[in-house]
Amino acid sequence: MKKLSQWKDKALFTPGPLTTSGTVKQSMLRDLGSRDSEFIQIIRDVRHRLVDLAGGNDQHTAILVQGSGTFGIESVLSSIIPPDGKLIILVNGAYGTRMLKIAKIHKINTQEIIYAENTCPDANALDHILANDPAITHVAVVHCETTTGIINPIQTYGEIVHKHKRVYIVDAMSSFGAYPINLQDAHIDYLISSANKCIEGVPGFSFILANKQNLVANGKYARTLSLDLLAQWQGLETDGQFRFTPPTHVILAFHQALLELEQEGGVAERGLRYYNNYQITIEQMQKMGFRPYLEENQRGYIITSFFYPSHLNFHFKDFYERLSEKGHVIYPGKLSHADCFRIGHVGRLNAADVRALMLSIAETLLEMGIELPQA
Amino acid sequence: MKKLSQWKDKALFTPGPLTTSGTVKQSMLRDLGSRDSEFIQIIRDVRHRLVDLAGGNDQHTAILVQGSGTFGIESVLSSIIPPDGKLIILVNGAYGTRMLKIAKIHKINTQEIIYAENTCPDANALDHILANDPAITHVAVVHCETTTGIINPIQTYGEIVHKHKRVYIVDAMSSFGAYPINLQDAHIDYLISSANKCIEGVPGFSFILANKQNLVANGKYARTLSLDLLAQWQGLETDGQFRFTPPTHVILAFHQALLELEQEGGVAERGLRYYNNYQITIEQMQKMGFRPYLEENQRGYIITSFFYPSHLNFHFKDFYERLSEKGHVIYPGKLSHADCFRIGHVGRLNAADVRALMLSIAETLLEMGIELPQA
Repeated sequence: MKKLSQWKDKALFTPGPLTTSGTVKQSMLRDLGSRDSEFIQIIRDVRHRLVDLAGGNDQHTAILVQGSGTFGIESVLSSIIPPDGKLIILVNGAYGTRMLKIAKIHKINTQEIIYAENTCPDANALDHILANDPAITHVAVVHCETTTGIINPIQTYGEIVHKHKRVYIVDAMSSFGAYPINLQDAHIDYLISSANKCIEGVPGFSFILANKQNLVANGKYARTLSLDLLAQWQGLETDGQFRFTPPTHVILAFHQALLELEQEGGVAERGLRYYNNYQITIEQMQKMGFRPYLEENQRGYIITSFFYPSHLNFHFKDFYERLSEKGHVIYPGKLSHADCFRIGHVGRLNAADVRALMLSIAETLLEMGIELPQA
Repeated sequence: MKKLSQWKDKALFTPGPLTTSGTVKQSMLRDLGSRDSEFIQIIRDVRHRLVDLAGGNDQHTAILVQGSGTFGIESVLSSIIPPDGKLIILVNGAYGTRMLKIAKIHKINTQEIIYAENTCPDANALDHILANDPAITHVAVVHCETTTGIINPIQTYGEIVHKHKRVYIVDAMSSFGAYPINLQDAHIDYLISSANKCIEGVPGFSFILANKQNLVANGKYARTLSLDLLAQWQGLETDGQFRFTPPTHVILAFHQALLELEQEGGVAERGLRYYNNYQITIEQMQKMGFRPYLEENQRGYIITSFFYPSHLNFHFKDFYERLSEKGHVIYPGKLSHADCFRIGHVGRLNAADVRALMLSIAETLLEMGIELPQA
């Protein structure tokens, strides 16, 4: 391990864990008892702030679940769908596919509607399916598929799901905190996100924003102990505590991150900063000859996929490592059918950080003897 | 929230999360990418050190699982027991009961052997049952039942389980790092512990020390995605990475905690410090008139249960809060049939801390007008 790098970390242009503020990390320099009244008060404040951020009201609640975002998704899918329920998953990337995998393990009757990774699932198709299959009880979709960075129209789907009176589950892992989401307007019954995404906390738990009425009515189908969503909620409601040891330090960091999100001006201002990061990236990358994978109207400002340039000297691993040595961490691709890499726009990064990355990339292309044709 | 308390945390005389060193917490002041080569190297080092600590060899492996200790237990029970397997659980406290609950949720054919909370399960009974029921495939037991602090003889059980050629699962949540445990001598196939116990890290993941051969042969029965033990191991083995976002900061803290355990002189020296904490506690508490729940030969040096004194002025909540205000956090009881509270002896606490707690307790008794008869 290089001692020199220890106190000047690389900038993370990834989908998370992200670069966080120094003050967020410093809030972990404490040991609080998990049943201490101060800690219980912090959990309560975190839960209230999350509901508020999502435009929820007293019909909504926030539940923290230990583990990564996938644990939160599995907690929802394995807890609230009855044995005779039927789930529709709209899939256009790896995270939709992961939901399918979870549903399959728990033997949930599931139908997937699969679209290409550069295409949003068709709302009319969903409408048609819901109109014709009364067996369907639940619909799930990913908001920002970080596979490509595509943003799916969750509000449009939500109106359709609501019209057909089904339960609506949204994986907003990478978008919550960066895009405005209103649980009521989008008719979302369960929204899942994670501590280390656009709230800019550190990894260690996921959180679920849930419609209380639905949770109480349908939460009794838990297929695990650790990921039992209703029991987790009941624990938090009765004495304010977790059923099982919570990641106390990570929650302290998240609380601080929520305060800093408010200080920044909320989701609107944060979204603007990320959008600006995206704008600089896309403009400079195209100037250097890189081509984005998605059409402009589908691109979000969370993360952008770029095709590998076809130049003979381009080898991604070499490119990645040269950037990493310069202090910039980008992300490999995850597409099934095209060679891409990804650059994230989120976390505690601003225009200056992005410009520094762009200079690094230009320098690296020079080092590798790559000159790309202008787009 | 009291601003004053923010940088002088209370001492945690609890079963965890525990008081940790400043340097352990400071190691979280970094943001590392979860796929960064430095981070992958740290995971590898953590896994090697864990196997070494348990006296493992190249037949053993360490697997980290996101979430609390219960997630690790559920990962093992829900991954490695075939549908036609049969599990015996030796129960003498709340954590044995929790294993039963997990087994039941996953519809695992399970037989419990229940003993009183102040009694170690009988090794001869286990021998007899294994000799007479060939359907039994797995045996599980808790090493230190933090319900009472009792230490169960895992090596004795292990020899019996080994003799009968069954698979042996040990919940060493509260004991690993404090008591010497040798996987080979005790014939343990799966040992589960957690980051925030006697390694003195912070909470956020559990870890499993596993017999590789058994894991490969019997790990294919996962009933969840997130807690799939074999898949988690395969992920760590193939590219050194987690399948799903790991708690990067918590792992950095754990790595530092492992280095500090080595600096302290390993499990032997750490055990001695804890034992000394226990000795001061038991001696002083008895002098003040408190009676321990367990007989001396059953008591461990992790945590001790004391009966509520029968004095009319004693109200646990009041007692607890007065101690907490003085900067000392003790722990409520968890017994099914007796009113007790608990004092932990583990974490970054030494003789001076324990003596300070004892003075606090004496002062609190005075405040509450409680004079206890000498034991």
